[in-house]
Order: sequence, then C-alpha cells, then structure tokens
Amino acid sequence: MKEIHLFYAPELPDRLALPDDEAGHAVRVLRMKDGAPLLATDGRGTFYECTLLSASPKHCALQIERSFPGDHLWQGHIHLAVAPTKNMDRIEWLAEKATEIGFDELTFLLCKNSERKVIKTERVEKIVVSATKQSHKAHKPEVHELTRIADFLRQPRTGNKYIAHCLAEEGTLPFLFHLLPADGEVTMLIGPEGDFTPEEVAMAEAAGYQSVSLGRSRLRTETAALVAVQLANLKQQKG
Amino acid sequence: MKEIHLFYAPELPDRLALPDDEAGHAVRVLRMKDGAPLLATDGRGTFYECTLLSASPKHCALQIERSFPGDHLWQGHIHLAVAPTKNMDRIEWLAEKATEIGFDELTFLLCKNSERKVIKTERVEKIVVSATKQSHKAHKPEVHELTRIADFLRQPRTGNKYIAHCLAEEGTLPFLFHLLPADGEVTMLIGPEGDFTPEEVAMAEAAGYQSVSLGRSRLRTETAALVAVQLANLKQQKG
Repeated sequence: MKEIHLFYAPELPDRLALPDDEAGHAVRVLRMKDGAPLLATDGRGTFYECTLLSASPKHCALQIERSFPGDHLWQGHIHLAVAPTKNMDRIEWLAEKATEIGFDELTFLLCKNSERKVIKTERVEKIVVSATKQSHKAHKPEVHELTRIADFLRQPRTGNKYIAHCLAEEGTLPFLFHLLPADGEVTMLIGPEGDFTPEEVAMAEAAGYQSVSLGRSRLRTETAALVAVQLANLKQQKG
Repeated sequence: MKEIHLFYAPELPDRLALPDDEAGHAVRVLRMKDGAPLLATDGRGTFYECTLLSASPKHCALQIERSFPGDHLWQGHIHLAVAPTKNMDRIEWLAEKATEIGFDELTFLLCKNSERKVIKTERVEKIVVSATKQSHKAHKPEVHELTRIADFLRQPRTGNKYIAHCLAEEGTLPFLFHLLPADGEVTMLIGPEGDFTPEEVAMAEAAGYQSVSLGRSRLRTETAALVAVQLANLKQQKG
C-alpha cells in the first residue's frame, strides 16, 4: 500500500508550521508544493489534517483543516527504565522497536555495573520521533536523560512496578507476563550487561518494585528490555 | 555473574575437536591451555563438558567428560519464514534477537514485492551461531536459503500455519496470539516491506495458512517477524 507520510510538529496547534527539519523533508525530499495536503501529529495524541500554505525548505506554514485523536493502542501507561548498553546501536534499535510496538516513556538508568555512564539522548529522541512517524502513531514516547537508579527509585510512581534480574535461583521469580495488569501504569526496570547488584535489587524492592523473570531464555539487556515492552503492550492491548 | 563461554562444535561427538574458528577463539582470545575444561554444544540439543587435549589455534582436540541434554525452553517447533528486508542489518538483528528469544527454523522468502532478491545466508548463520552460544542454548535454529514463496507453500508442513499481512480491513483478521497452540509445530509467514500480494495471500490460504494480524501497531517487516517469534515462544513457554 502507498504510505501517507506523517509529519511530527510538536508545536501544533499553537505554532502553525512544520519544524525546520520537517520543512526541509517536505520540500526537498517529498517535493511538496503550496496547497498540498499533509498529515501531522503533535506526538501528544492528536492528528492534524493540514494544508501547506507556504512550501519553503526553511519554513512551511500550515493551515489546520481538521484534527482528530489518535488511538492509544494499549490500555495503560508503559514506562521502560533501562541501563544503556555499551554499544549505542543496541540502544538505538531498542528505542526504534519499542516505539513501533508501543510504549510511553523511556528512562536510561545509571547503575553500579553500567558499562555506559553517559548517553546522548538527542539521537535516541530523533529515532523515537522517526519510529513514531513511521508507525503512524499520534503518541510519541517521552525520552528521559540518564538517571541514577537511586534517584529514579526515589521518584514517586503509581501503578505496578517491576525489576527484572537474574540474581535469584532459576525458576524462583514470577514471570512478568503473569503479573502485568491489563490496564494502568506499569514501570519496568532492566539492568546493565552485568545485571543489577543485590543492593540495587534490595533498594528497588524496598521502593515497591517486584522482582520478576522474563522467562528462561538468557537475553541481552536490549533484548530483555524489548521483550518487557512487548509483554506489557500485549497484556494491555485493546481488542 | 561470570559467564562460562559456550563453544559451538556441530561435529561432536563424532569429531572430537573444535571447528577452526572456535579453536582460534579458544587459544588466541580466551588463552586456553592444554587440560582446560570447556563447555560445548552440537547445536542439536546436547551440551558436552570437555577437556582441551591440545590447545593449538589451528586445531583443538577435545575429550568428552560428560554430555547432557539442553532444555528446549519452548514446547513445540517454531518456524519463521520472512521476506528479507532491503537493509541487511535489519535481518541480522532479527536473526540475533529471534535466536535469543528462542525459535527453531528461519527461512527467507522471495515474494513479488521483495526489495531484496538475493541474500548471503553465511553471515546470518554466523550471527545465529553466536547468539545461540551467547544465550547458552543447545539448540541452534536452522537457517534456510532464500525460497520462492510458491515453492515454500508447496512444501508439506504439519502443524499450525499462519500468514500475517495488512491486506484485510483493520480489525477483521484474528490476532495471532489467540490462535497459537501451546504445543506443536508452528509456521509463520511475514511479508516484505511492500507486504504480500493478494495473490500470495490467496495461494497461502489455499495451502492451509490462516491469515492473521499481529496487533494494531504498524510494524516494520523485521519487527513484525520478531513479534511473531516472541508471541509463539510465549504461548509455548514451559512452566
């Protein structure tokens, strides 16, 4: 099928224009002309059918013809907090795939065993935006800066909270999928290559996070994170 | 936790040696010496605890001390048949992630809308081998050469057969997860970037493949394929 291109214009409806990079794409790549119809989203749940008033690669003024809510395809709010991997490519594909499958928030955790202690979130944000557009979603996941796990655990959070790790005897931890709620807020912590430390797990449990398993397969950090998102999205999928 | 390295020696137990590349890795990278204990798998379900008899980067002779079956972590047999994407990286990560999560067979399909009409499976095989070792599995997924979809559909296959596509009216196709059996053989077809053609879907349905949806999120080919594997693995997961 022919894809209609979705533009990301987070300042809609207040600012009736495409962001610069989107304007360049519209005019230089898609060769759109004045009067062309286009579909945009604010990334906060609304689609806008617009008319392109001025097709300049520097500035594309828009007129909104119609706006309508985009479906949030899963019931609740899915927050993934993961220690970034040493290799950035792995984090980038995680961000792309989790966005395609569908989740709401991504926080990068700084843990004791983290191999990566700094992360540029600009590039991850770009990938999340393009995956949101590519999968035609009106909800763009929010990307947060690297946060020390102790600080993250101190942040007040409602809903169900889980920490996945391999520190317990195999088969003793409950399987995440069986515990996940069909609705509501879910926060899931995934550790670094070297896993969480026993102290971090104890700290999380004290903060109301339940220790869980992601199944018996041994997964890399980014795979575990994507599986967690997929399980939560599946459990909360709308009919 | 400290990882014990798993070696892949498909000729065990007949040939009591590591393949050349594994021998080089053992001696040059891991600096293993004569008499060192090592763990290997034949990739067909068996682990072997061995002793390294001669540590040469060209040839590592082994003595088997003990062999034991490796758990097949899911009940049935999961076969993914997917049209390779234009971008090889996407296929390679799919192969790695599907292997980590757990499946049994990977066939590349040549379809009418395939953007990639040739594929070197040697590199995919290497990635599958390393993911099998990295995730400590004794079962290595089998990788098949590119096969024309008409030929694939002609191959006799037992078990449940599905074709995922977006040609039907949204919401009219059953969701794969609800149909998947908890045991037995499962074959799942995932189309190219341009999706299957109506003719290909009709051909598949005539061959006993049921049309299914992977949910309401719009997924790239490689993401759809990984989601399908994850759903099948989840449905067939052992307690």
